[in-house]
Amino acid sequence: MSTAFHKVIMGLYDFLKECFSGFWDYETPKVMVVKNRTLGVIYRAVQFLVITYFIWYVFISQKAYQDSETHPDSSIYTLMKGTAVHGDDILDSVEYASPSEGGDVISTLLRRDITYDQKQGTCAEYYKVENANCSKDADCVPGEVDFNGHGRRTGKCIQYYNHTFKTCEIQSWCPIEEYAVVREPALVEAINFTVFIRNYIHFPKFKVLRGNIEDSLGKRRKRKYLNKCQYNEETDPYCPNFRLGYIASQARESFSELCRTGGVIGVFINWDCNLDLNPSYCKPTYSFRRLDVRKDEDNSGYYYRFAKYYSKNGVESRTLIKAYGIRLDIIVHGQAGKFSPIPTIISSVTAMTSVGICTIICDWIMLTFIDKNEVYSDRKFDEVREIASAFELSYIGSFGSNHSDLSDGVPL
Amino acid sequence: MSTAFHKVIMGLYDFLKECFSGFWDYETPKVMVVKNRTLGVIYRAVQFLVITYFIWYVFISQKAYQDSETHPDSSIYTLMKGTAVHGDDILDSVEYASPSEGGDVISTLLRRDITYDQKQGTCAEYYKVENANCSKDADCVPGEVDFNGHGRRTGKCIQYYNHTFKTCEIQSWCPIEEYAVVREPALVEAINFTVFIRNYIHFPKFKVLRGNIEDSLGKRRKRKYLNKCQYNEETDPYCPNFRLGYIASQARESFSELCRTGGVIGVFINWDCNLDLNPSYCKPTYSFRRLDVRKDEDNSGYYYRFAKYYSKNGVESRTLIKAYGIRLDIIVHGQAGKFSPIPTIISSVTAMTSVGICTIICDWIMLTFIDKNEVYSDRKFDEVREIASAFELSYIGSFGSNHSDLSDGVPL
Amino acid sequence: MSTAFHKVIMGLYDFLKECFSGFWDYETPKVMVVKNRTLGVIYRAVQFLVITYFIWYVFISQKAYQDSETHPDSSIYTLMKGTAVHGDDILDSVEYASPSEGGDVISTLLRRDITYDQKQGTCAEYYKVENANCSKDADCVPGEVDFNGHGRRTGKCIQYYNHTFKTCEIQSWCPIEEYAVVREPALVEAINFTVFIRNYIHFPKFKVLRGNIEDSLGKRRKRKYLNKCQYNEETDPYCPNFRLGYIASQARESFSELCRTGGVIGVFINWDCNLDLNPSYCKPTYSFRRLDVRKDEDNSGYYYRFAKYYSKNGVESRTLIKAYGIRLDIIVHGQAGKFSPIPTIISSVTAMTSVGICTIICDWIMLTFIDKNEVYSDRKFDEVREIASAFELSYIGSFGSNHSDLSDGVPL
Repeated sequence: MSTAFHKVIMGLYDFLKECFSGFWDYETPKVMVVKNRTLGVIYRAVQFLVITYFIWYVFISQKAYQDSETHPDSSIYTLMKGTAVHGDDILDSVEYASPSEGGDVISTLLRRDITYDQKQGTCAEYYKVENANCSKDADCVPGEVDFNGHGRRTGKCIQYYNHTFKTCEIQSWCPIEEYAVVREPALVEAINFTVFIRNYIHFPKFKVLRGNIEDSLGKRRKRKYLNKCQYNEETDPYCPNFRLGYIASQARESFSELCRTGGVIGVFINWDCNLDLNPSYCKPTYSFRRLDVRKDEDNSGYYYRFAKYYSKNGVESRTLIKAYGIRLDIIVHGQAGKFSPIPTIISSVTAMTSVGICTIICDWIMLTFIDKNEVYSDRKFDEVREIASAFELSYIGSFGSNHSDLSDGVPL
Repeated sequence: MSTAFHKVIMGLYDFLKECFSGFWDYETPKVMVVKNRTLGVIYRAVQFLVITYFIWYVFISQKAYQDSETHPDSSIYTLMKGTAVHGDDILDSVEYASPSEGGDVISTLLRRDITYDQKQGTCAEYYKVENANCSKDADCVPGEVDFNGHGRRTGKCIQYYNHTFKTCEIQSWCPIEEYAVVREPALVEAINFTVFIRNYIHFPKFKVLRGNIEDSLGKRRKRKYLNKCQYNEETDPYCPNFRLGYIASQARESFSELCRTGGVIGVFINWDCNLDLNPSYCKPTYSFRRLDVRKDEDNSGYYYRFAKYYSKNGVESRTLIKAYGIRLDIIVHGQAGKFSPIPTIISSVTAMTSVGICTIICDWIMLTFIDKNEVYSDRKFDEVREIASAFELSYIGSFGSNHSDLSDGVPL
Repeated sequence: MSTAFHKVIMGLYDFLKECFSGFWDYETPKVMVVKNRTLGVIYRAVQFLVITYFIWYVFISQKAYQDSETHPDSSIYTLMKGTAVHGDDILDSVEYASPSEGGDVISTLLRRDITYDQKQGTCAEYYKVENANCSKDADCVPGEVDFNGHGRRTGKCIQYYNHTFKTCEIQSWCPIEEYAVVREPALVEAINFTVFIRNYIHFPKFKVLRGNIEDSLGKRRKRKYLNKCQYNEETDPYCPNFRLGYIASQARESFSELCRTGGVIGVFINWDCNLDLNPSYCKPTYSFRRLDVRKDEDNSGYYYRFAKYYSKNGVESRTLIKAYGIRLDIIVHGQAGKFSPIPTIISSVTAMTSVGICTIICDWIMLTFIDKNEVYSDRKFDEVREIASAFELSYIGSFGSNHSDLSDGVPL
């Protein structure tokens, strides 16, 4: 144990001494140069491929010389504009858009199923609810609450509104929506509603702030332009007002179908900023995609229910609204890149290492196909055999020289 | 200066000439092969460890051969279902769930503290507010607004509602919540409320869209299944209806405790998609965790206040509701991977480089422990001394040959 | 074809045989050691630079030895506190803050433009709307809906409220906002409103959960502290109550200007956790920045409209409120790092590879400036010429030895 330990220490000591004594020596790998045209061509071809890949894909396409930043801080402000006529009523954005705070999710109602004048009370359960159909009171269990039903059963069996059959009486908001609902026609004018989307992004690493609103125009012209313009990829790419009809068509959806079922549409704002160029080139592009899947008929669509409460002769009443609509989810993707020495160095080192590793391929070709007489392999591989006797001999033989060529076996 | 410059130019010229003349030569490192069994075993063992690590950890576990994408675009739609009986009233989702738009944050109220019939007016300040207790008008500073109080002091000292002590009169919504509040019992039925969560994710890079709703069933059976099913990790993993009671138990929270204090629960939808397999394997898993920390008693919990406004005899009145509830924050994590040649190549190059660097360990072992007579070190390291005289001599000696072996010192 | 195939197979067979026979040999590159002080100094200097860069930048500054995690799960709960006096009315948080659910976006109104008592009906269009001015009924197209107008034209030309000129009559919510609006003064007390922000973050990979609320105090003192304290970077860094005035001043905005135009302010919570240290050092810092850009006058600012609906003598009426305010977007940035062997190894391998690649620089210096007599280049590059005749000769000459030194041209 102690001798082994001693050996390790001595080994370390020798190693360190050698290190120190040889500290100012320069070490460089020995290289065999093979003057063979075939091999040379293969070698350069492989190197060319690797270097081309690095220059083309890594440097030019992936911009590996840039420091990059994704997920910028983003601020969204949305505002719906437009007026719809609905029978004798006018709907403005206060009525059809929600929530009102103008965040990154905004929904517009396109069609309403309204149940007017509901009050807490008792009425007949919807006939499609399980076990709701009855012929006598005994069919209805008092106190039972069906999960898909509308309330608590009182235990009575009553006439289903102005129909001839009977269902169990329930305690609920009465009358129930399924019976009393009034289906309104869709707001066809909604196709011309516009949503104003203001988006500012900030890359904290690069301290770059960009907005999606054109500011090359003068102040007065700008205000006028922004009030009237409508976004169009070709003609008005920097106008932040988006017609609902345009959004639907870009998402390849039929607006009338959306009015029927509702839907969730993603508005993607894509920022791809190369900060080595003029920052004014850093402009967003927009894309639109329906986020709920249309073909999945039963589960697609978008609706929500809300109620307006009021007091009628001292009794709390409500108007229940089932609103089918478009929900716009505004999703911001951003990335920015700027030249930086560190990723450049790292990519270059990786490129050089990869070029170096190419020799593996060429070595294999050389040693297998070209090296007929093992000339190359003898020169590349300097075999050192550990045969004690031969070792002693040659060691003595090469005495005086501090370099020994054991395997050469040159007779002295 | 000019000579130095000339030297640099000439050096470059020679370097380039040499480069060009030797362009089609193949260069490969010279290697010393040591026929020593011990060293060979150590060498292969180290290589084996490195290769095993790369194959096991980097390739199999980390899937470094795949191009990956995280943070997919996600679309959430939520809908609360269920009916609660509260005394003689029925509460449906319109009343207990908010906001109504069905986004990724939805809260359900479980318990209400209601203050009915508040009006703008004057009344007594809450006795626990600082300096609110008084015995005469002079104790109350008119116009003062206490930060934790309810309004502006009028300067009078009045009886505290139907109690015997006095507090300062304030201008406020009267009566104050602390005095007039009616604490309702918890909605125990809420344990059976379900939240329907529809989630579609989209990986833009791979153009893959996935939803969390089972679609292997036929259309009719599916609708029926989705109406009735409740998510359960074992029995119904692809049903998107989650019972609040199930969510609470999975988050290891007591539902009755949640009814008392409220709480915020995260519903995590985790997508881990290996796109090299059949996409139908790409299914979400769910996990549930309370997001506000329960042990931190004073700050945990979740409540919010809202009011219903109405006009009573021409005077604006309101019912103030302090709602304790569960807020569900639906958080989507996603990642997808697909085979791609580029990361495969990069990982392989890194692996080979690492294998190559292993020689450092073996070199140290060889030179320290095995190389008794410096045979190996002599053969590995070809020392070139810069001693001018020896240099001249040997240079002349080897004249005629364009290769000189200085250090060998072989007598000619 | 078949011979070529045979050749490939034989080549592979030989290669594999050789591989197997030499499997337990240790291969190490041959190295030339140049005992030149100048070169040694350059060599070590370059190595020193590379190593320093790796230790300083990669290891110490970038903490490349750590496994890191960004984008932690975050849970936000916000609550506004404070009371404002507005004429004879008191506004509490239920009235000025929205939405009520306390998520990561909360807005406070600072100033209201109120239009009382709007009803569906007919009235004069706003005179600034295009083509709204008229002198006779024929100027107004019945049924026309102007996009920036308020409703559908009836075809009549009527007096503009109590003015002398005329505009087209429209069907709309009447009277129109522009005419009937009552501009309220700003809620100057809002500068003292506080927002309580509770934030918990969770790093799933490291299983670390942290909150932004001081918990070193006892329970009772803590409750008292949290009720009264206000965040200040120096004096109260762990208090989660933020005065709106403090937020505005930190974002370098004038509060009175914000009251006029409204604005969106980002509250950034930054977690930078080094988990190798005591977790109690893992505390958030806050920063504040206005997210809509002030200088962009026409588009900056923040307002939203909402309405309070009520029934007046059986007719639906509403109070329309245009609310200018501050919207706080709470944005959480987080990253955590913990020592891990794998990134340490990868960084070290990269460092060593980079150190190895340094020889390229020194080789160029050596071969260009120092290698006067091509001594070094001869020793580094072992040229193997493929001249058949010379080859045969030397091959025969060196017969008996299994190593041949072709290019040496040593006369036998």
